[in-house]
Amino acid sequence: MAGVSAPTVSKVINGRAGVALDTRRRVEELLREHGYRRPEAVEPAAILEVVFSVLESHLAIEIMRGVESVAREHELAVGFSEMRGRLAPGRGWIEQVLARRPTAVIAVYAGFTPQQQGLLSTSAIPLVALDPTGEPGHAIPSVGATNWSGGVAATRHLLDLGHRRIAKISGPPGFLCARARLDGYRAAMDAAGIPVDPALVRDGAFAFEDGLARGAELLALPDRPTAVFAGNDLQALGVFEAARRAGLRVPQDLSVVGFDDLEFTRWCGPPLTTVRQPLTDMGAAAAELAVGLAAGRPPAQTRVELATTLVVRQSTAAPA
Amino acid sequence: MAGVSAPTVSKVINGRAGVALDTRRRVEELLREHGYRRPEAVEPAAILEVVFSVLESHLAIEIMRGVESVAREHELAVGFSEMRGRLAPGRGWIEQVLARRPTAVIAVYAGFTPQQQGLLSTSAIPLVALDPTGEPGHAIPSVGATNWSGGVAATRHLLDLGHRRIAKISGPPGFLCARARLDGYRAAMDAAGIPVDPALVRDGAFAFEDGLARGAELLALPDRPTAVFAGNDLQALGVFEAARRAGLRVPQDLSVVGFDDLEFTRWCGPPLTTVRQPLTDMGAAAAELAVGLAAGRPPAQTRVELATTLVVRQSTAAPA
Repeated sequence: MAGVSAPTVSKVINGRAGVALDTRRRVEELLREHGYRRPEAVEPAAILEVVFSVLESHLAIEIMRGVESVAREHELAVGFSEMRGRLAPGRGWIEQVLARRPTAVIAVYAGFTPQQQGLLSTSAIPLVALDPTGEPGHAIPSVGATNWSGGVAATRHLLDLGHRRIAKISGPPGFLCARARLDGYRAAMDAAGIPVDPALVRDGAFAFEDGLARGAELLALPDRPTAVFAGNDLQALGVFEAARRAGLRVPQDLSVVGFDDLEFTRWCGPPLTTVRQPLTDMGAAAAELAVGLAAGRPPAQTRVELATTLVVRQSTAAPA
Repeated sequence: MAGVSAPTVSKVINGRAGVALDTRRRVEELLREHGYRRPEAVEPAAILEVVFSVLESHLAIEIMRGVESVAREHELAVGFSEMRGRLAPGRGWIEQVLARRPTAVIAVYAGFTPQQQGLLSTSAIPLVALDPTGEPGHAIPSVGATNWSGGVAATRHLLDLGHRRIAKISGPPGFLCARARLDGYRAAMDAAGIPVDPALVRDGAFAFEDGLARGAELLALPDRPTAVFAGNDLQALGVFEAARRAGLRVPQDLSVVGFDDLEFTRWCGPPLTTVRQPLTDMGAAAAELAVGLAAGRPPAQTRVELATTLVVRQSTAAPA
């Protein structure tokens, strides 16, 4: 039906190279139309593919480390691809994956269309979401971190130091992880009986520039905050810079807490007090889930959230 | 001879999963003993494997981006593994690679024993070295950057600003890239007729802590330098911290130049003047070399060095 030779069909089914992209596409489509599902006996390629949104590139190495440690135990290679900010990988990408037939795909904050999920499913390629941004709405098994609890821990730390005017710079409102961290902040403030001043809560992208801009606004207030809980580490470094420009010292004049625990924050001025996401463990958990699915074991739970931990360094102190 | 079935031998030859490690080892050894070389007709897995030494993990994402852009054009996946500081990957690793039979292996500052190179060669798996540390002594094709020229450009920039007491913190003496950057510094100083004060030249590891310790020593000298050219960006951030502790402002009281242009240095105090290594382009060049070798095209040259560029930001100024 496809007008190609049997060896070509075999190459497509077995995910080997040497077939033109449009031929591969035609054969794959015919296979799907006729309800072909690869038999278990056809071994997939010994590779776990990890797909990143460019947003998460600062987190990538730690995640890859975790995936690799599990992959190595199972004698699998780890594949890397980056979507460069497109939230769903392009058509070309999914076809390349179908051709390679990896053991499983791990999507790091990467959205897949239902059609793409269907294509992976037809080919019996399991899909797992690793989601440092905390989106729990996946139909597919996913791994995240406890963003809300991290928000509580960071805010409680500042309260324990004696701060009362604690500002919150949040992430993009559409990101559930940003909402969870913000809700944790509110919960800790409420529990301590401190009303939240709406002027001290601001949104921004998860970027240095937004930390700098929102930080500058907050520090220019007549009754400025004595502490800022940033949405992530990049924003926190932006607040450092806003403080420098305002002639304020961290932590003597201003306490700052981040979120993520990116390695380089310990080299960027006073080592940053932050909420650590266990990215390596999250990568490993996603890989375990993926390997289990590939072996036909349904996961015990479809959403795993690993604990965050407050790491106290030198950017927080009692208010002057 | 191996005491296994024909399908098992076929799985080993074709790099498919489902064979126990010791069986795979026995079959691979017998194949090698009998001079078996996989025929060209057996397609390798559509993957480029990139092996990192842990040393280079800060550089990893940019390199992976470059490799991936070329791999995608050729419909190849990109594999990632990290050696965690072991300079030659362990026995288990090489066997896993042989089993997977990638299209090619790119080693990023990763040494391979002659035996391991032999195993890859028997299996017709090309090996390319991507070497941001500048080691030109490879027998295998390699990609690097122009470290010496970068050293000249950085030093000339400081001389042009009017600095004369310019300190050099170098990398580990055994690293040729460190030596090349140091030689570039000396060449620029000589060309300007400025004698190098031996007290201003110090060695260190390529780490923040070494920049901090050597920086503190230099700033404690009776006749302290007005500028420091660090061995890499991490050392430069250590010098920032040494300056802060000594109550000196960058760049008003001390100019600092780094080497690498890691993305996060623009968020760590005054944005760092540094020498940019084109890591993404280097990754792409290594991938092109690897793809060419896999297609049976010998490289036009076995050592490619891409140009470094001085990027002037805000950590350098004329001396007070």
